[in-house]
Amino acid sequence: MSLESDLSSQLHRARRASRALALAQTEQKNQALAAVKDNLSSLADEIIATNRGDVARAREAGLNNALIDRLTLNPARIIAIARGVEEVIALPDPVGEAMTQWTRPNGLEIVQTRVPIGLIAIIYEARPNVTIDAGVLCLKAGNAVILRGGREALETNRLLAQLMADALRSSGLEADCVAFIGNPDREVVGVLKRRPDLVDLIIPRGGKSLKEALAGSEVPVLPHFDGICHTYVDRAADLKMAEEICFNAKCSRPSVCNAMETMLVHADVAETFLPAIAARMTAAGVELRGEDRVRAIIPVARPASDADWDTEYLDLILAIKIVDSIDEAINFIAQHSSGLADAIVTTDAEAAGQFEREVDSATVYVNASTRFTDGFEFGFGAETGISTNRLHARGPMGLRELTTYKYVIRGSGQIRVIPTS
Amino acid sequence: MSLESDLSSQLHRARRASRALALAQTEQKNQALAAVKDNLSSLADEIIATNRGDVARAREAGLNNALIDRLTLNPARIIAIARGVEEVIALPDPVGEAMTQWTRPNGLEIVQTRVPIGLIAIIYEARPNVTIDAGVLCLKAGNAVILRGGREALETNRLLAQLMADALRSSGLEADCVAFIGNPDREVVGVLKRRPDLVDLIIPRGGKSLKEALAGSEVPVLPHFDGICHTYVDRAADLKMAEEICFNAKCSRPSVCNAMETMLVHADVAETFLPAIAARMTAAGVELRGEDRVRAIIPVARPASDADWDTEYLDLILAIKIVDSIDEAINFIAQHSSGLADAIVTTDAEAAGQFEREVDSATVYVNASTRFTDGFEFGFGAETGISTNRLHARGPMGLRELTTYKYVIRGSGQIRVIPTS
Repeated sequence: MSLESDLSSQLHRARRASRALALAQTEQKNQALAAVKDNLSSLADEIIATNRGDVARAREAGLNNALIDRLTLNPARIIAIARGVEEVIALPDPVGEAMTQWTRPNGLEIVQTRVPIGLIAIIYEARPNVTIDAGVLCLKAGNAVILRGGREALETNRLLAQLMADALRSSGLEADCVAFIGNPDREVVGVLKRRPDLVDLIIPRGGKSLKEALAGSEVPVLPHFDGICHTYVDRAADLKMAEEICFNAKCSRPSVCNAMETMLVHADVAETFLPAIAARMTAAGVELRGEDRVRAIIPVARPASDADWDTEYLDLILAIKIVDSIDEAINFIAQHSSGLADAIVTTDAEAAGQFEREVDSATVYVNASTRFTDGFEFGFGAETGISTNRLHARGPMGLRELTTYKYVIRGSGQIRVIPTS
Repeated sequence: MSLESDLSSQLHRARRASRALALAQTEQKNQALAAVKDNLSSLADEIIATNRGDVARAREAGLNNALIDRLTLNPARIIAIARGVEEVIALPDPVGEAMTQWTRPNGLEIVQTRVPIGLIAIIYEARPNVTIDAGVLCLKAGNAVILRGGREALETNRLLAQLMADALRSSGLEADCVAFIGNPDREVVGVLKRRPDLVDLIIPRGGKSLKEALAGSEVPVLPHFDGICHTYVDRAADLKMAEEICFNAKCSRPSVCNAMETMLVHADVAETFLPAIAARMTAAGVELRGEDRVRAIIPVARPASDADWDTEYLDLILAIKIVDSIDEAINFIAQHSSGLADAIVTTDAEAAGQFEREVDSATVYVNASTRFTDGFEFGFGAETGISTNRLHARGPMGLRELTTYKYVIRGSGQIRVIPTS
């Protein structure tokens, strides 16, 4: 009960603070963000020292190098985070925007107006930059934020959240708009998900166990989960382009959700294309897996099992399948894609058009790498993550995706007449 | 298990059918809707006869007159439903609309494209017109639909759903796009909410017990629940206008969610305004409730308890409170409104502006009746209901609110370069 009541009073304070923040002027919010940026510079040494403690504990706990790398802050990374804050300051304030407006025959003026969502909980893992990235985006969009980072980055995150709260206070906004949850237990997630009265939205960025912990949430959840992405190399593909795109989609950063996990190759080009891409992938350390038909062309590939088509490797592994038509490719994607990012490489405009229309993923690419599914790459200036939801927001989330709307209706005494029937 | 497996195979068929429907051309969808309209005319006698059976059973079961009225179809009502279908045909198809598009410095063209949600379950109560109204809206927006109406209207709904399925088939679309659930048990809701693999969205239109049945749903829910609506009569109100607006908001149809439940009156005008409105309301059979301060002016009012401020009467009852400032009114609304529709009556532009900005409800009115919170009144041509959700869709839902989007990204071989850091 102590966890529950501690958390509850923190959530109540954040909720109260969210009301004033929702009405804050753009200038005042930008002032607070500028103070965040200044604090990042002036406290850089302290942040790095604190982070060094987290890293040391993580090493003791036996975290692997990839995770240690994501956890580590250095001067260059702090500068990059500060630059991100600067970009968010430069973005237009979405709040108050008239999205659409129209006048009814009875003279009522209706204005669909963008407003903040309210209080948003972000649950994330090792990377401490998310504390600032997601925090400032929420604040700019007028939302109070609950930050619940990973256990490994606890002290770094605490300091970064404190730095944001101080920045808010120094700009005349309420420090309670940033609620940092220092308790790293999974139990916290269970409490959050039962408070739809206080929390308007949970954005989870994590793996399977977080997904399970959020099952049955009473608070709406905007998940950032699996990425099983495909690239389909069409019979009419420019094969050199296909090679560059596939190599980039798999190898530029295999550990992220927009990396390619499965490559589909049209049978007509498989004998030319597969040996070339296989040589390049293998040289980069990628383990290839394929059906017999694939292995007949590139014997270096190991046998693929059915499970491979539904696995997010997040690693230097690639599943390969030969298809006999674009329809087969599209159906395969419908069945196995996680709906995040899928691509076609083709010079055939008709095939491109069919793929665009028929593939129902958050981002559908023609002749480009799936790795562009990212808020920065979309030009959003920043991102809170990539939604794998179908509703409210899909794909990369920027400022707008952190808002909702209300209708303002202006009349001159209109009343509704009910026809009798 | 039989319920579960029956339902599951029906949902699987609807889901499969939804893929083709999502890609159907506008013309073909409109043809199907025109066939729905024709079937409504040609089968009107059969519909009325079937409905008569439902009505007779409902009377035997002791349903009250208001419910019997909502359940009843007559020739005029069937014509009205058919006219609604006609209006939906005339609406532009939202699917495929380029919502925004831009080009990145690297040459990538990004098009945010409107697409259907997929498979939508609508759970509703007595009114059989919802079967057609909601059904045709879902279909026009390219969604397959699961219809689960109230027990009372079972046979009428079954016939109306069949009529839609026939219309689809006759237009070359799949009849499975309309899945009618004939089992009226609450258990069905429990099965639906556990199938996020098949159902993309549940839209519940009902009361408290439906809300409870959906708690912990794994499928996203767009609730259409409570309406506790306020009208605030400002010190600068045109009192004659205020009287018309308040009377309309309370009395034109007290049983609906956009009817006023609480009236807030500024102290400066209470002594003039309250006696006038009280006389008119009382004459219309409205029971008034108020604090001592209210009762000192209009003794006809009964004492209000704290519970009154949080009660959706849906009846000829009105709670009245005197406030000393617009701030007090706004804070009261923040605390007690269900966030559906709240209004101010004032001639003071500054007060109107403050109310518009600070009241965070789906629809915020200046000098008009809250009763306009309705898809038809908004000019949407139709509505599936009024969302009381903050996310995805808020307030009256038309065609657009039944869609989501994907990004189509067109490149010429772009790959993502990762800066080393």
